[in-house]
Amino acid sequence: MKIDGDRLFRRFSDLGALTDPDHPWTRRAFTPLFDEGRTFLRAEMEKVGLDVRVDPAGNLIGRLEGSDPALPPIMTGSHSDTVPDGGRFDGIAGVLCGIEAAQALADAGMRLRHPVEVVDFLAEEPTDFGVSCIGSRGLSGALADDMLARRHPETGEALADAIRRIGGDPDRRQAVHPKAFVELHIEQGPVLERTGTAIGVVSSIVGILRAEVTVTGRPDHAGTTPMNLRHDALAGAARLIAWISETAGARAAALPEAYLVATVGRLSVSPNAANIVPARVSFILDVRSSDVAERDRLVNDLQAVAPDLLRPLRLDSALTVQSTSQPAQMDARVQQCIAEACVTTGHTHRVMPSGAGHDAGFLSRQCPTGMLFVPCRDGRSHCPEEWASQGDLEAGTEVLMRTLMLLDDT
Amino acid sequence: MKIDGDRLFRRFSDLGALTDPDHPWTRRAFTPLFDEGRTFLRAEMEKVGLDVRVDPAGNLIGRLEGSDPALPPIMTGSHSDTVPDGGRFDGIAGVLCGIEAAQALADAGMRLRHPVEVVDFLAEEPTDFGVSCIGSRGLSGALADDMLARRHPETGEALADAIRRIGGDPDRRQAVHPKAFVELHIEQGPVLERTGTAIGVVSSIVGILRAEVTVTGRPDHAGTTPMNLRHDALAGAARLIAWISETAGARAAALPEAYLVATVGRLSVSPNAANIVPARVSFILDVRSSDVAERDRLVNDLQAVAPDLLRPLRLDSALTVQSTSQPAQMDARVQQCIAEACVTTGHTHRVMPSGAGHDAGFLSRQCPTGMLFVPCRDGRSHCPEEWASQGDLEAGTEVLMRTLMLLDDT
Repeated sequence: MKIDGDRLFRRFSDLGALTDPDHPWTRRAFTPLFDEGRTFLRAEMEKVGLDVRVDPAGNLIGRLEGSDPALPPIMTGSHSDTVPDGGRFDGIAGVLCGIEAAQALADAGMRLRHPVEVVDFLAEEPTDFGVSCIGSRGLSGALADDMLARRHPETGEALADAIRRIGGDPDRRQAVHPKAFVELHIEQGPVLERTGTAIGVVSSIVGILRAEVTVTGRPDHAGTTPMNLRHDALAGAARLIAWISETAGARAAALPEAYLVATVGRLSVSPNAANIVPARVSFILDVRSSDVAERDRLVNDLQAVAPDLLRPLRLDSALTVQSTSQPAQMDARVQQCIAEACVTTGHTHRVMPSGAGHDAGFLSRQCPTGMLFVPCRDGRSHCPEEWASQGDLEAGTEVLMRTLMLLDDT
Repeated sequence: MKIDGDRLFRRFSDLGALTDPDHPWTRRAFTPLFDEGRTFLRAEMEKVGLDVRVDPAGNLIGRLEGSDPALPPIMTGSHSDTVPDGGRFDGIAGVLCGIEAAQALADAGMRLRHPVEVVDFLAEEPTDFGVSCIGSRGLSGALADDMLARRHPETGEALADAIRRIGGDPDRRQAVHPKAFVELHIEQGPVLERTGTAIGVVSSIVGILRAEVTVTGRPDHAGTTPMNLRHDALAGAARLIAWISETAGARAAALPEAYLVATVGRLSVSPNAANIVPARVSFILDVRSSDVAERDRLVNDLQAVAPDLLRPLRLDSALTVQSTSQPAQMDARVQQCIAEACVTTGHTHRVMPSGAGHDAGFLSRQCPTGMLFVPCRDGRSHCPEEWASQGDLEAGTEVLMRTLMLLDDT
């Protein structure tokens, strides 16, 4: 079996060209551009000889029949929608490398026992309906009726109708039970590139906790209020943010197995005037870990230490958890197949967590699931600069194809 | 001579009632409400027997003739305009207590050698023309032609025309050389109330330095970028802000004479998204001191320490000074008169700096100048809650009147 890197990379160029011209590289789910992308993907799948359908949840699926059609399929894939100004590889790599792997198998006359299904999951990125991972939710019993009833804030269209518009039939959605699922994705981080590693074997997808922290002081005149009589909410928030950054950094360095990151990315100051001591600062704390206990320990310790940090500044604070999600463990046997495929094809690999959410998180509820990462330039993602090289994508496709073969044999 | 506290306080109620009903207590310069306030003030001044005029710079001046009209006047006063949602005492106290002091002198048949002029300075607060202290600038040669040419961003009216509209004649403005100037003002801070002191004798008006500090990092994915590979601009800004707050606090506590405050009141994060490591944070640093050397030392030390604080976080920073103003020293002899007046009238006093700018800052370029502060509740100012008690205002007026008499004798 031979992966054709030029053919693979040409599809990235062709699909990437289907972008909002004013916002490269943008192809949002449910837009006419998204339909154009799907038309392109369907045509490419059919060229490869796949049997193409849109399932009730709106996923585009190309099936390479197995020698035993009664067996459940081995699924691979990712998504073709992007974030605004997003990129040409996030999600798309998993779909196009899946097509290339199927084509290489078909071209070589290699028929697996299990059918192979290459999936373009519908709308993995956050949508205007307030739901993400719509297609993979639909396959795993996680697309609730109240989600389907949500309406687009501008057009008023219900999500269910939007899914129908692109060929789905959401009332008939049902959970699937494939033999296995494996998703190829760009890393979206800098680790593979920095360490010169070809393939990341994902051990788990982190669980995310989001909390709003509010520090409350008093809006005094910045000229007339002596330092020792202030209630400066920003001075207090600065201490909390420094503590979060330092503590998460130290703990992450000390954890041999678990992955831990903590970010304060969004912050607002009130009244936010140069000559008024800040009365109130609120910020969003985003903590992610493969180990729920480590994640929750950071948040609990912050709540315990905050009064000690803020009391000398005459400040109060409050922390409200906004959302949590559980980590998704990747299946040990699938991880083993990916690692073995790396060895067979001569590509280096390392086991690593995924700090971002993926369709594989939902599929892992339904079947043995794994993910493999390929490097992306400078770790950049969700931006126009997002880039993965032809060589790295070719290597990833080789490993993906070999993994499908190993899964077929287990 | 007898100060009539009820009469004094009634004028606060009457003038305060002239407010934008939706935004108590607002009476912005150059608005119809401001004209109504001036009409009220003119009537009150005339009732007291003052000779009332609007000078070329747009100041409303009521003159109590002296026994020697050839002598330069002793001036007192402040301003009747407010900030949005501002208050009923900031500025207004100096005008109304000045009128009451003149009335008490007149009622007692006490004629000073020097004329006494009670001034409502035009537009002390920041205006839409981007100029503040318009009237006191006009009296001290600090109202430049380019300021007069500035236009209102909405109406397009030039400042010169706005001054004409309220009765001034800016082309004929000229610097004055009074015998002395003394301004009564609410403290706008908590020190007098906390220490149970009736009167603050202002030693100097602080010089203000404003600088923009920018911390530059990189916008990475908050999930996929390990802690040790981040360039988190907000984590860096937090360290700088904590340093500023702690260092200014420690130095202020250690300075026996000088006053020092440093504030980061305005801050913005970019891109300010919960799931993106902050790429850039900029904030405004406001440093005020009676001692220029202390003020500049804080800024210089921040610039020196920033690289050490930020290098471990892989960040750069830049500091740009936006504006500076020199401290205005209050005249020693005027301070002495105010202190002596406190002793004579039986009111406690303490010498203190002013952390806010005032019309007295400009007048101090023209003549021996002093200020006296009265307490305000909870140190609040520039807010609807701003409040000073009748008793404290009455005490202030007694001290003001006695100060005018002492200045007349020097």
